[in-house]
Amino acid sequence: MKVGLFGFGRAGKAVATVLLQSEEAHLCWVIRKSKVLQHRSVPEFLGIKGDGDEQGLIFPKDEWTPEQLFDKYPVDVVIDFSSAKAVLSYGEEAAKRGIAIVTTISTYPAETVAFLKGLSRKTRVLWSPNITIGINFLMLTAKILKTIAPYTDIEVIEEHFKNKKEVSGTARKISELLCLRDIDIKSVRAGGIVGRHEIIFGFPFQTVRLIHESITREAFGNGALFAAKSIVDGKNGFYSMEDVLIPYFNLK
Amino acid sequence: MKVGLFGFGRAGKAVATVLLQSEEAHLCWVIRKSKVLQHRSVPEFLGIKGDGDEQGLIFPKDEWTPEQLFDKYPVDVVIDFSSAKAVLSYGEEAAKRGIAIVTTISTYPAETVAFLKGLSRKTRVLWSPNITIGINFLMLTAKILKTIAPYTDIEVIEEHFKNKKEVSGTARKISELLCLRDIDIKSVRAGGIVGRHEIIFGFPFQTVRLIHESITREAFGNGALFAAKSIVDGKNGFYSMEDVLIPYFNLK
Amino acid sequence: MKVGLFGFGRAGKAVATVLLQSEEAHLCWVIRKSKVLQHRSVPEFLGIKGDGDEQGLIFPKDEWTPEQLFDKYPVDVVIDFSSAKAVLSYGEEAAKRGIAIVTTISTYPAETVAFLKGLSRKTRVLWSPNITIGINFLMLTAKILKTIAPYTDIEVIEEHFKNKKEVSGTARKISELLCLRDIDIKSVRAGGIVGRHEIIFGFPFQTVRLIHESITREAFGNGALFAAKSIVDGKNGFYSMEDVLIPYFNLK
Amino acid sequence: MKVGLFGFGRAGKAVATVLLQSEEAHLCWVIRKSKVLQHRSVPEFLGIKGDGDEQGLIFPKDEWTPEQLFDKYPVDVVIDFSSAKAVLSYGEEAAKRGIAIVTTISTYPAETVAFLKGLSRKTRVLWSPNITIGINFLMLTAKILKTIAPYTDIEVIEEHFKNKKEVSGTARKISELLCLRDIDIKSVRAGGIVGRHEIIFGFPFQTVRLIHESITREAFGNGALFAAKSIVDGKNGFYSMEDVLIPYFNLK
Repeated sequence: MKVGLFGFGRAGKAVATVLLQSEEAHLCWVIRKSKVLQHRSVPEFLGIKGDGDEQGLIFPKDEWTPEQLFDKYPVDVVIDFSSAKAVLSYGEEAAKRGIAIVTTISTYPAETVAFLKGLSRKTRVLWSPNITIGINFLMLTAKILKTIAPYTDIEVIEEHFKNKKEVSGTARKISELLCLRDIDIKSVRAGGIVGRHEIIFGFPFQTVRLIHESITREAFGNGALFAAKSIVDGKNGFYSMEDVLIPYFNLK
Repeated sequence: MKVGLFGFGRAGKAVATVLLQSEEAHLCWVIRKSKVLQHRSVPEFLGIKGDGDEQGLIFPKDEWTPEQLFDKYPVDVVIDFSSAKAVLSYGEEAAKRGIAIVTTISTYPAETVAFLKGLSRKTRVLWSPNITIGINFLMLTAKILKTIAPYTDIEVIEEHFKNKKEVSGTARKISELLCLRDIDIKSVRAGGIVGRHEIIFGFPFQTVRLIHESITREAFGNGALFAAKSIVDGKNGFYSMEDVLIPYFNLK
Repeated sequence: MKVGLFGFGRAGKAVATVLLQSEEAHLCWVIRKSKVLQHRSVPEFLGIKGDGDEQGLIFPKDEWTPEQLFDKYPVDVVIDFSSAKAVLSYGEEAAKRGIAIVTTISTYPAETVAFLKGLSRKTRVLWSPNITIGINFLMLTAKILKTIAPYTDIEVIEEHFKNKKEVSGTARKISELLCLRDIDIKSVRAGGIVGRHEIIFGFPFQTVRLIHESITREAFGNGALFAAKSIVDGKNGFYSMEDVLIPYFNLK
Repeated sequence: MKVGLFGFGRAGKAVATVLLQSEEAHLCWVIRKSKVLQHRSVPEFLGIKGDGDEQGLIFPKDEWTPEQLFDKYPVDVVIDFSSAKAVLSYGEEAAKRGIAIVTTISTYPAETVAFLKGLSRKTRVLWSPNITIGINFLMLTAKILKTIAPYTDIEVIEEHFKNKKEVSGTARKISELLCLRDIDIKSVRAGGIVGRHEIIFGFPFQTVRLIHESITREAFGNGALFAAKSIVDGKNGFYSMEDVLIPYFNLK
């Protein structure tokens, strides 16, 4: 699976690291805003030994038109960790060629969402602001347990580093999904905790705890890779991370 | 749903407590080995206020033949927390009348298992040595996560009170289900811990922990009640706890 | 060490159980409010095998004057799990004889506190509303860590069963001791959780968690026994649970 | 407090980062083995804004004799994260000038230990292979709790990334300190867990858990800084991390 990556900020770098070390993907290029690092390669920059082939070339975003880029360096899937605007430039060309698109941008304006849905008639488009496998798995799992045991009390504890201001978006999404009240989310802010989410199910005589701990942002990489693999050869359409996980839940 | 209970040991008493307090079940009677407590009722014995109707009568096992018992005090489902032999006496009569059977006996001789399967042609029979919802939910969930992320390292920590000798049966079952090695189970024996199972999924950059904590053995009661409700009106057949949970996992 | 116990409610029974099974204490008698169980013994009532000697006699509170009681059944220490008034009746007589007093009553009126302090000139009096060793140990420990690392962020998570209304008194005491704000206590109410307190110290690059989990109220028994042993032979004075733990912290 | 740092490997870099951002220390220079980065400065290399003064100069180890170095760039304390041999070259000269020495080398040959002890007659020398505050605090704390409650069952769970081969040295040290058996240490190896140590105290009716979680190796920096501050102005002598923490435990 040949992959092109948009975005080379902190998350983008982490994703590139994972892609380069994976045997299931070949990272062809990275498009970044600034001209710094132009024409260097990701393996060289990150000090990772690549697989021999030319890979991970870093281009500033204005060096090529999407058409030139996809002609010269064809890929099967594009992963987008850049900005809400990026897809507007490359989306049409990618969809035309049937290149799958995985985007993790937090928020898109309504018209960009409509644009993405338009693209999804011609290719596979997956949009998920939180792309880690663990969190998405936990959310589906919690939804199931609530259906099995609707009488349980559910509370969410989310822990993050001191300076994180608002309640975590992930906790809010969990809360929404499980129809919890705002006060059922407890936010702990302490020191340098990277990120920890715990969903507690209080049964009368037993307790179930579903916990996700982030170690580093490279977790996004594994999630993006999983998402890419899941849709690269699939049916055209508009997907969420949940959509590609749900088939694994259909036991027997 | 009218319920009859076989067994009034520590687990049986805990189950009776839950059944009496549930609005979804009416505990008609309890059959126990000894003649102690004969003709008293469970609500009186446990100091629980019942729902007004005559309920929870305690009979020694030889007071009635199964035929007499089911005639005089008809039930929809029988829950069996007694011994491996009990079902041999009442099973045929229950099956004939289409009374569902939920049994939690740890081990049955091969011929009794065959006998149970025979009964299951005429009624619903559910056999599960560990009937708590939480543990069974966790096992299914872990199986799914392993399929989603086969590259994770999975380890199990089980904690119990000091004098528990062997590795917990539940931990062994989890281990079997996930194809772990014996050394992947870590057994902690300390003080009065009732029972705690943790399944750790180590991803490269994130960790998922699925935890079950037992508070008291009344947890069996909620599980048995759930099992009973699940099969009381279903199709005849031989069920496990997993079988009745699986439909909840089929999302969308 | 000969012990007399005031109070035979749920906590009192739990404490009696621990005392009867300890080799370090001999529970001589229990004084309870009601006349139910009069002249039975605790071992018989609780189904515990005693140490052979006559022990654990249950008396209603009006059967004896304190003078008669201490004459006929002399003890070294009195443990009081009854009510705020009880000590007013037996305190003077106990102090006169140098019998140590351990009381766990939550709140005393100011004049009773003064009365207790008066008694403490003639005997050892220890008053602690929360007598578990674990919690008191945790509080001292947290105080020390805050002095070592004043720059850490400290938060407290307390978890209890669904129907516990207010913030736990223990959490409030921890918060006071560490000068935390009210919003640093996160209260989780879920199912049947007996009681769990976690103090989180967030360092920039590491996290310390100090956790106490209650299993059953028998924990009071071990604490009361520890308190009794600590003061039975000591210097007259007014003690808290902290006071008897502090010497263990003076390393080397 | 002026600090000189020996060693600029992964741990050394982390320590330098913390020192540069602390208001309590001024990192004057770093001595490293290789000539790479010669005459650059740590703030520039790490992209950290310094405090304006010249600081964090990087020198290869052979550029200066210790005498020249301490003459030209005088410091109050030396922190050594380099190798077992380094102290042999600079130790004598540092001790002569009363410069305190904090070293975190894992193992020294017996003669080097003797050498260090010799130096400690002329200056303050602190040697601690694990310099994090959290772990050392936990060890002292656990020792105290064992004295308070010798009847508890103590077990240690240590969790680390998949490829860590042997039992963690910290866990072994905890075990030694608490006189545990080898089998009381449970080692979990899963994914990318940075490092987690949990000491469980099982009481009959309650459980205490003391937990340390490493986030990144910068934790060494805070520990080294704490150690340096503790001994910079103290009495000459040979210290461990425990020695400088113990005074905080002497309550009241």
